[in-house]
Amino acid sequence: MVKRYDDKKIEQLIYNIYKGYGFTEEESQEVAHMLIYTDLIGIESHGVQRMIMYDDFIRNGKIRVHNQPEVVKETDVSAVVDAHFGLGQLNGIYSMRLAIEKAKQHGIGMVTTRNSGHYGIAGYYANMADEEGMIGLSSCNSRSAMLPTHATKALVGTNPIAFAMPANPNTFIFDAATTTVPQGKIEVYRKLGKDMPALWVAKDGETPVNSHSDTQDLDALRDLDSNVGLAPLGGVTEDTGSHKGFGLGVIVEVFTAILSMGNTSNEITPDDLSVGPCQSFVAIDPSIFGDKDAIIAKFSAYLQAIRDLPSVPGKPVIVAGDKEAAAYQDRSANGIEIDDKTLAEVTGIAKRLGIDYAQYVD
Amino acid sequence: MVKRYDDKKIEQLIYNIYKGYGFTEEESQEVAHMLIYTDLIGIESHGVQRMIMYDDFIRNGKIRVHNQPEVVKETDVSAVVDAHFGLGQLNGIYSMRLAIEKAKQHGIGMVTTRNSGHYGIAGYYANMADEEGMIGLSSCNSRSAMLPTHATKALVGTNPIAFAMPANPNTFIFDAATTTVPQGKIEVYRKLGKDMPALWVAKDGETPVNSHSDTQDLDALRDLDSNVGLAPLGGVTEDTGSHKGFGLGVIVEVFTAILSMGNTSNEITPDDLSVGPCQSFVAIDPSIFGDKDAIIAKFSAYLQAIRDLPSVPGKPVIVAGDKEAAAYQDRSANGIEIDDKTLAEVTGIAKRLGIDYAQYVD
Repeated sequence: MVKRYDDKKIEQLIYNIYKGYGFTEEESQEVAHMLIYTDLIGIESHGVQRMIMYDDFIRNGKIRVHNQPEVVKETDVSAVVDAHFGLGQLNGIYSMRLAIEKAKQHGIGMVTTRNSGHYGIAGYYANMADEEGMIGLSSCNSRSAMLPTHATKALVGTNPIAFAMPANPNTFIFDAATTTVPQGKIEVYRKLGKDMPALWVAKDGETPVNSHSDTQDLDALRDLDSNVGLAPLGGVTEDTGSHKGFGLGVIVEVFTAILSMGNTSNEITPDDLSVGPCQSFVAIDPSIFGDKDAIIAKFSAYLQAIRDLPSVPGKPVIVAGDKEAAAYQDRSANGIEIDDKTLAEVTGIAKRLGIDYAQYVD
Repeated sequence: MVKRYDDKKIEQLIYNIYKGYGFTEEESQEVAHMLIYTDLIGIESHGVQRMIMYDDFIRNGKIRVHNQPEVVKETDVSAVVDAHFGLGQLNGIYSMRLAIEKAKQHGIGMVTTRNSGHYGIAGYYANMADEEGMIGLSSCNSRSAMLPTHATKALVGTNPIAFAMPANPNTFIFDAATTTVPQGKIEVYRKLGKDMPALWVAKDGETPVNSHSDTQDLDALRDLDSNVGLAPLGGVTEDTGSHKGFGLGVIVEVFTAILSMGNTSNEITPDDLSVGPCQSFVAIDPSIFGDKDAIIAKFSAYLQAIRDLPSVPGKPVIVAGDKEAAAYQDRSANGIEIDDKTLAEVTGIAKRLGIDYAQYVD
């Protein structure tokens, strides 16, 4: 069952848990804010729920609590950061701040990081630039999950692209895997016992796997050597644009793993503690191109023209960021949604760390 | 009928035609090189064939032969260019050179242009950066053609994204409309009397228009107020990722029309000579991130691992740029392909301009 909880209290609980792991006060604050923000904008799959996975990683040494991100190469407009397997979120926040600082001084900042960890939603980092009135981009690679067009084996990650830009009334935030859907969406459908409504998973390069009860095939999604993988955005044939989603996934590899000389998707194996995903962070100050207010006003007017289009009955045209803004308003007022299983697991972590959690979840 | 012609001779013919219009020797050379390159890499829809459209535009004043691109705002890493409705290709070459110059000096160069014209394939400009050992990106907006998800009317252009990066044996060149297919592909299928193999065109937001004989609906694609439009990459439903193609199309608007304060897709009407598309050009020097040779070697190895994947029988895995490289090799040796109708039209232009064309097309 899913219940609503006060976001401020849960944020405090997360803060205490991360402090309990040994992160500093500031670090714990940053992680808690990031995870709660994710739940506030309605992306429950990547917020509080992910604490279970991070807890495993902290305990098995995949996430190294005391390691700090390090700038290994730098120019006025760029940096390469080695995250040394610290927490992905902290690396992300550090790297995006660096990109923003460079953009403040030189107009553009571009940071690529290696040896990082799972950093949650890419949109969070893009949005950090938006909060400074800038354009933000962030991408992440991951272990192989996407089938390159015609391939019977995956070799590109789900490799999301996030882009944020100030607009009124809502920030434009695009955050999308370059596969048709991310891995997590498949898991949600399996849990719910629902069949997949479109070609999300393919076997042998082109056969759709749509039934939630295709247990063997769906389990094989996690097996890097299997003949099952996620369809790129655009499906598995050129006719539907498969090569475009595949190409975009490769471009993400360039900005993350290639430029940072980190691990490409095919080098990331879940059990190896000495490899990790790579990420990229870009901030661009619109002022270098013109009057920022005028640019934002023009963009807002364009987005409004899109919203105002006639549409399929009952299905309004939704601009990227609008759903998140509505969720934020709702969750801020009525609490974030946490399912019982997740809550039990999180309170279990708290208990193990000796944290009195009862006051945060009543 | 399609015949093969010597690319060097046709390039000379194009040069003479553009000189005939009143372009300078250097400008004529640049246009001729650009158009021939497009045919050499096998994209006949955007090379010599487009000269007919440009000829119309030059005669009706949409393309203004003597106008020069002008930098209206500039920083070390950025520029806004007003193309003043000069030839799109010349604006593109000028703007990408500017981006490359900035990248040579400061690592990154980002140029956005307004009041431009049709500039051919976006990949040409991205590839200019590749030829300098850099990463190149280019995008272009166009009049409304894409249906935002659920909308029954188009309001985003086909808005291609091009990305090039040095790699061996072939440059990685990605060049793709953010619609499932570009407008030109529909025209090719209509000419051939072939039905569309997937959802490329939709009516009323979600009904596929697949038959080449749906003349009325397909003609309506060109009518900005009609209920027919191109499906975004990802189709017309969220289940298939429609919102992703739509969002990518909007991002292209930002880098082209919004930052340059030019015309967004919905402001571009074909008959209005005082509006024009916008373009963006980015060059990034990989050296600011690390050893360029090592970066290119790492990327090349990753691409080779993708090529080497097992695949659907008879369908090898093709990396973006491989088809173009093969076409280039073939056309350079055996000539570019021009159909009789195009040849007749081009020689018609030459004749009108008083150019002795026979020697170039024998």
